[in-house]
Amino acid sequence: MTAPFTLDPRLASDTVPVCDLPLCRVLLMNDARFPWLILVPARPDLYEITDLAPNDRLILWDEVTRASNCLRDAFAPTKINIGALGNIVRQLHVHVVARFDGDAAWPGPVWGAGMAEPYDDGTLDTIRQRMVTVLGAD
Amino acid sequence: MTAPFTLDPRLASDTVPVCDLPLCRVLLMNDARFPWLILVPARPDLYEITDLAPNDRLILWDEVTRASNCLRDAFAPTKINIGALGNIVRQLHVHVVARFDGDAAWPGPVWGAGMAEPYDDGTLDTIRQRMVTVLGAD
Repeated sequence: MTAPFTLDPRLASDTVPVCDLPLCRVLLMNDARFPWLILVPARPDLYEITDLAPNDRLILWDEVTRASNCLRDAFAPTKINIGALGNIVRQLHVHVVARFDGDAAWPGPVWGAGMAEPYDDGTLDTIRQRMVTVLGAD
Repeated sequence: MTAPFTLDPRLASDTVPVCDLPLCRVLLMNDARFPWLILVPARPDLYEITDLAPNDRLILWDEVTRASNCLRDAFAPTKINIGALGNIVRQLHVHVVARFDGDAAWPGPVWGAGMAEPYDDGTLDTIRQRMVTVLGAD
């Protein structure tokens, strides 16, 4: 019997859930400095992109494209940054981040850049709802 | 007439060419601190992953997978890091980096972490040849 998918507790504590796409659970990073989605393939025991079954890999990149388009349409950023690092949290997850010229880490990466600044509750819910609507969760 | 593909001069100056895959030019970052490949889709006027034609996007992720497997097989790293940032060099390019527990930027990202330490000529040529062999360039 295959172990069930469980979300790493550090990913859970830094984010709020947005929706489930066919492969990935989509999370919104609770950091008002950057509009930042995290996609976690809902399969157990994945660490590297290359651990995914080939068809799941295709679905992952399709969902990363959907998340990129979602952030572009909602925020009109200067640049989208995509990253799969996993040096600290090993569970496979892909960051999709809307970046703006002059944002808190520009032009460097967001990972390891200062401390998260949590949204106020109203803004968090507004952005989360907008992501749900634009992603058009199945 | 479509403009020809030309490599951004900053990417060219930081790297040595490894090989051309069906879509991407593969470059080796001249930084002895990290085994680090950069894949540049050889198409003009690309900035975001979402600018790629759908079929090219599939080829890109296939080639990122090949590069990841290449670094894993050649270096047995702790983790592969994948990133598409482009905040400084806008030409679309994807980083595939072999990371080791305790390397010069661990566990943070390599981007913006200190100064590159160029390889000596012999090591650079050895690693470049190994990448060519393992990637099995077409």
